[in-house]
Amino acid sequence: MNRLVGIDTRPPAHLDKDEIRDETKEICKEIADLAHQMYAQEKQSLLVVLQGMDASGKDGIVNTVFRYVSPNGVSTAPFKKPTDLEFAHDFLWRVHQQAPKAGEIKVFNRSHYEDILVPSVYGYLDARLIEKRFRHINDFERMLEDHGTKILKFYLHVDPQEQRERLIERMEVEEKFWKHSDGDWETVANRDKFLDVYETIFDRCADVPWHIVPADKNWYKSYFVAKHVLGALKNMDLNWPELDTEMESIPKK
Amino acid sequence: MNRLVGIDTRPPAHLDKDEIRDETKEICKEIADLAHQMYAQEKQSLLVVLQGMDASGKDGIVNTVFRYVSPNGVSTAPFKKPTDLEFAHDFLWRVHQQAPKAGEIKVFNRSHYEDILVPSVYGYLDARLIEKRFRHINDFERMLEDHGTKILKFYLHVDPQEQRERLIERMEVEEKFWKHSDGDWETVANRDKFLDVYETIFDRCADVPWHIVPADKNWYKSYFVAKHVLGALKNMDLNWPELDTEMESIPKK
Repeated sequence: MNRLVGIDTRPPAHLDKDEIRDETKEICKEIADLAHQMYAQEKQSLLVVLQGMDASGKDGIVNTVFRYVSPNGVSTAPFKKPTDLEFAHDFLWRVHQQAPKAGEIKVFNRSHYEDILVPSVYGYLDARLIEKRFRHINDFERMLEDHGTKILKFYLHVDPQEQRERLIERMEVEEKFWKHSDGDWETVANRDKFLDVYETIFDRCADVPWHIVPADKNWYKSYFVAKHVLGALKNMDLNWPELDTEMESIPKK
Repeated sequence: MNRLVGIDTRPPAHLDKDEIRDETKEICKEIADLAHQMYAQEKQSLLVVLQGMDASGKDGIVNTVFRYVSPNGVSTAPFKKPTDLEFAHDFLWRVHQQAPKAGEIKVFNRSHYEDILVPSVYGYLDARLIEKRFRHINDFERMLEDHGTKILKFYLHVDPQEQRERLIERMEVEEKFWKHSDGDWETVANRDKFLDVYETIFDRCADVPWHIVPADKNWYKSYFVAKHVLGALKNMDLNWPELDTEMESIPKK
């Protein structure tokens, strides 16, 4: 049996939703302060990789965890079906172009892991080629980290019934119509296959560890991710750059 | 005499700071709602061009006017000294790459107008080449607008004494050290020359109109820009996309 099935998608029972929401707000403000310092220093960067099934709440993470960060310091990169030009290159080509520059937080909404998942489930790539991609990804992530890019990888774990309700909601609520795609039902039908590939990914691409996020409840999901983001920024030992001049350099009026 | 000198850098005297701040907050929330619809529709886009002297408050605009917009829907592009690769292309090459995609708001922190300003003031380009750039820019902006990109151009207008105080503050307050550059004093010394070029730009590149922002006070500057941004979004006639399927397409469990 797939181990993911045994991992709870619900928040720990003892937590109070309102308390956690308040705490999350404070955490997110602290994230914004540290992101500002990282931006000022222009030395390190943070890459947040969000993976999860359709409607697992990836956009919600973007909107809550980084809500206080200046648009100067955070941006997102969605990875959809590759274009013809992208398909004509190695699978990391388009990903590399979206790597965060020094000082920046970049959020990947899906990522290079789709290039393992989709061909594995639908079988359109030779298994030996997919096999090689695990190593390509590990090498790529190590290179980014060696360069000063801290990587955080999250899998948003949602109960299948909860996911079904969310997908139906996209067909019932006008503000969510645009998120609906008939193709999502096909992914749902292949859920077990996807989970199996995810298992393999968690095993094989663990140099940069994966965090499995219990994501049935938005308040807990955001709290969980925000705590890890804050922890990563705190570990960077950020501080304000020193003044690189003398006051005497101010010209007379 | 340069006409800009005659334009007030201060807020209109009758306005109440606290009232305007409250109103600005509401405007910015409305901007976020409409930006969300624009993002969902994925048809039109908004390009906000911010020009102004050093310390005129361009970053402040980014942080206040777009504070409620999802990082999915807004991003910024700072244009600094071109790299060798950028210099090896026409001046619009790097700018074009940063144009907003459908659904997105892009904020240019400085822009292609620097490619008129800097060579004009420091005289490193033949005047006839600079002359041609006015037309290149007008053609470029028209093309973007024909494609569905609404362009808003702002010049942040700050009193020279206020600017001097802000530049000195960057050498006195630790959190602002990183913004200091000795080179800014050279720009200050050339203020009159820059204003003359700006005058020419306002005349020659007026197909997409310029907004002169009285920018001595942050609360008024943000209000001024936010009102124009909201107006532009309201003019787009945005609405939620329709559902592109039938409820019958939901698979049985």
